Amino acid sequence: MSKYTIWIDFGTKSGRAVLVDISNGEIIATAVHPYANGVIDEVLPGTEIRLPPDWALQDPNDYLEVVKRTIPAILRESGVAPGDVIGVGIDFTACTMLPTTADGTPLCFLPEWRANPHAWVKLWKHHAAQPEANKLNEIARQMNQPWLDRYGGKISSEWFFPKAWQILDEAPEVYEAADRLIEAADWIVWQLTGVETRNNCTAGYKAIWSKREGFPPDVFFKALDPRMEHIVDEKMRREISFLGERAGGLTSEAARWTGLKPGTAVAVANVDAHVSVPAATVTEPGRMVIIMGTSNCHMVLSKEEHHVPGICGYVEDGIIPGYFGYEAGQSCVGDHFAWFVENCVPAVYAAEAEAKGLTLHQLLEAKAARQKPGEHGLVALDWWNGNRSVLVDVDLTGLLIGQTLATKPEDIYRALIEATAYGTRLIIENFESHGVAIKEIVATGGLPNRNKLLMQIYADVTGREVKIAATNQAGALGSAMFGAVAAGRAAGGYDTIEEASAAMARLREEAYAPIPEHSAVYDRLYQEYVILHDYFGRGANDVMKRLKRLRAEVFGGGVEHA
Amino acid sequence: MSKYTIWIDFGTKSGRAVLVDISNGEIIATAVHPYANGVIDEVLPGTEIRLPPDWALQDPNDYLEVVKRTIPAILRESGVAPGDVIGVGIDFTACTMLPTTADGTPLCFLPEWRANPHAWVKLWKHHAAQPEANKLNEIARQMNQPWLDRYGGKISSEWFFPKAWQILDEAPEVYEAADRLIEAADWIVWQLTGVETRNNCTAGYKAIWSKREGFPPDVFFKALDPRMEHIVDEKMRREISFLGERAGGLTSEAARWTGLKPGTAVAVANVDAHVSVPAATVTEPGRMVIIMGTSNCHMVLSKEEHHVPGICGYVEDGIIPGYFGYEAGQSCVGDHFAWFVENCVPAVYAAEAEAKGLTLHQLLEAKAARQKPGEHGLVALDWWNGNRSVLVDVDLTGLLIGQTLATKPEDIYRALIEATAYGTRLIIENFESHGVAIKEIVATGGLPNRNKLLMQIYADVTGREVKIAATNQAGALGSAMFGAVAAGRAAGGYDTIEEASAAMARLREEAYAPIPEHSAVYDRLYQEYVILHDYFGRGANDVMKRLKRLRAEVFGGGVEHA
Repeated sequence: MSKYTIWIDFGTKSGRAVLVDISNGEIIATAVHPYANGVIDEVLPGTEIRLPPDWALQDPNDYLEVVKRTIPAILRESGVAPGDVIGVGIDFTACTMLPTTADGTPLCFLPEWRANPHAWVKLWKHHAAQPEANKLNEIARQMNQPWLDRYGGKISSEWFFPKAWQILDEAPEVYEAADRLIEAADWIVWQLTGVETRNNCTAGYKAIWSKREGFPPDVFFKALDPRMEHIVDEKMRREISFLGERAGGLTSEAARWTGLKPGTAVAVANVDAHVSVPAATVTEPGRMVIIMGTSNCHMVLSKEEHHVPGICGYVEDGIIPGYFGYEAGQSCVGDHFAWFVENCVPAVYAAEAEAKGLTLHQLLEAKAARQKPGEHGLVALDWWNGNRSVLVDVDLTGLLIGQTLATKPEDIYRALIEATAYGTRLIIENFESHGVAIKEIVATGGLPNRNKLLMQIYADVTGREVKIAATNQAGALGSAMFGAVAAGRAAGGYDTIEEASAAMARLREEAYAPIPEHSAVYDRLYQEYVILHDYFGRGANDVMKRLKRLRAEVFGGGVEHA
Repeated sequence: MSKYTIWIDFGTKSGRAVLVDISNGEIIATAVHPYANGVIDEVLPGTEIRLPPDWALQDPNDYLEVVKRTIPAILRESGVAPGDVIGVGIDFTACTMLPTTADGTPLCFLPEWRANPHAWVKLWKHHAAQPEANKLNEIARQMNQPWLDRYGGKISSEWFFPKAWQILDEAPEVYEAADRLIEAADWIVWQLTGVETRNNCTAGYKAIWSKREGFPPDVFFKALDPRMEHIVDEKMRREISFLGERAGGLTSEAARWTGLKPGTAVAVANVDAHVSVPAATVTEPGRMVIIMGTSNCHMVLSKEEHHVPGICGYVEDGIIPGYFGYEAGQSCVGDHFAWFVENCVPAVYAAEAEAKGLTLHQLLEAKAARQKPGEHGLVALDWWNGNRSVLVDVDLTGLLIGQTLATKPEDIYRALIEATAYGTRLIIENFESHGVAIKEIVATGGLPNRNKLLMQIYADVTGREVKIAATNQAGALGSAMFGAVAAGRAAGGYDTIEEASAAMARLREEAYAPIPEHSAVYDRLYQEYVILHDYFGRGANDVMKRLKRLRAEVFGGGVEHA
């Protein structure tokens, strides 16, 4: 008789529950529930309070509603008996964090704090803590904090401590009232199990924690602000739970919400990107998983610790227990193509696409696919949204070179695709030159299913075979695997994530091998990319930053903008 | 009683005659006649002969048809008595040249040569003599020919001797049979007057002639090919006529063609661009005329000879007698904006333009005009069609830097306009640093009337007032002026081009003064342009050329192009 796990994926705009047969990874039922308050970036719900620029909040009640709506729905739809559901896995956006009381009640649920924006959830893309991030990085450098190396030399404003510090800076009364500051991923597990756990994935990638060194020392936090000296002991906890562990069993209340049995195993929470790795069949070194969507997220495992400059970070046991999990990224991939299609494709192409029943993306792909590498004469730097790896510089911008009066839209479209592939190759070469081997690529996420040209170009440019994860929902499948591991073999699940991956994850039959004559041309074009990358990205000509500064000055100048 | 002159402008696709009142420059009547054979670049008329790439021929009979159709038409339309037309002026594209017999009969009119493409007119944009141009430049450098300096160090494949040499190389029998090789401008004057003249404008700018040194020495031509040693004496003539001189009077036959009086003064021929200078009120140093159309042509006068690197050339008496006339150019201006509108503006903009009754150019101008300088954060290099001045390098290509996901089409449109203005400023600074002063700009041609934003940006970027020639037809008016000077004061015309310009040319009342706060921002952006210009244009990073070579290799590789 089959056993099942449920994963719940908490995304940016909605939550989704999926019921998975753990014998083969097959998806049996799915239900989605959009957050009623969505991304809160204009007005605080129930108030007239307008939020400043760069703010992005959420309402934790929306997460609970996802649990209450979606799980009963998939049980109904599938007819699966609650007793056959042996585990629940969670993945979440991160760092998405909130202040709570000691029993886990979000401060924003309490009437006395409801009108204070700092009492709500700060979503991953809340960018208003940049001043705190800048100060934190400066102080960390001054104090020679060794952990800086693990994060490519820079902590992002999106991460945990800049967000916590912003609360203290701007709303010390909220900071004071918060017994706990916690990742939403861990908070929802707490709501389901009654047990406060802290998962090592968000702790490692977002909160400067490592298995060997723990959190930064109190003296560092004191240097940020004396009131933060004991933030870890006062507002967090030092005990960290590991991926694949059982956080606890469903409480009776959570069982009532969901229709599942009390005591059903709930896995320690995870992050959407990281959980995709075993779902893409990767539980060993040498195979890079690239999650390709609006941006690219590159994940690779290694038995050894290597200091790799310019990556997002690496965490021991952060992706798969027993390995250092390395993460790098490109800020602008799907977003890049979407920008191009929205802003740069003429009406005659729109008409042609409509006549042929294609999207503009499909039309451009079809036209660009007729070209040979090098034919359009263009090279781009894929920095429309800054550079995450390996330059770690949000102030870099885009470049396109080689245009003539004969340049067509499909030429530029192809050049933008190629630029993201060059960026990935540079990330791969950076890993390899620092000891982390990458033999092949497994692509997952939204883009690999939609654009064959993109996949072939990645293979040709990187010189590595690109395989495609069979599932369209790697985040889902990965969480289901961790749910099955949390349940354990005795309950019909698995003992290790490797076992779960072997049984539940698959690759597609189609794969993209490098075409040697293409790779030969791309080797030359990549050299051009590297020259431009280093010239504009490493300080020889900071024109991009000067243009950005000038732009800010012009906007700040207060001159009328008709 | 008013006196009139007629100018005939022989363009690339048609000829146009205009009747002008010489007392005030007013245009009384206009007639256009399209060339029946147009630009011949595919099949030789009346044959099955296919022309190779880069060829562009014309049929001299089309020029005669223009004379026969348009002049009677404007006389009819205006009711002006032939006796009141005191002179005829000609301007022509250049270098547009053909082989003829000793009496001026084009070889292509003769049955025995009609099927040979080399017997026809080679139009200015015939680019198939590039191998000859390359060899010519190499030999000239080896022989330290002093005249190379007058042409920025390079003779173009569009000019006279590369075209003549191509005839010799590929059709020695045509070269042998030709008694004369002559500019079409001079040929049409010959047809009208029976007198073979050679004007100093095309001789100077296109055929390496100067007032002081004449043509290059025979030993140079011998070095090209021994059969060319005596090309000047055998196929051309050393006597050169000057602008404003009377070439001759209309022959009886030409009088019958046109309805004008026999003996009516015909001026020495001119070039369309150069004749625009006095029509833009400029007959003195310090005021640069920019003819702004698909490309920019920059003309400025100086009493002294200055070696200015990177310009198209300078010719003593080449524009206005008594002055050295300097010419520089930008290859891609109106073409640039047209390319952008055709290839890079999305359907929603097309719909908005239609709803508002605007062209896409007008819509983009309106949106771009709302911005402050520096606001879009972009800089472009305006090399989509290579760089004419000051780098003189057709293998350079375009660049756009600074794009973000917020970049809009109007941002790029404005950046392209600005890039052409930076290019013009660089040309101006190059002139000034070599002794040729430029105090103000007079713009003429098609663009100044259509785009106020463009004019303001040129003023802001160059820091110079930009005035606009009153006439929309500066070529027409300038030719009419030279016709009036050829007739002379005794016949009711003028003795000098200065007198004619003072009477017949005017500026518009509107002028564009630099706005100091704009200029301050553009000074900074221009510095960025210069850094990029020198980095990509002067050999530090020849990526543009490498991309072009790679492109040629890919095309040449013979791999199937689906």
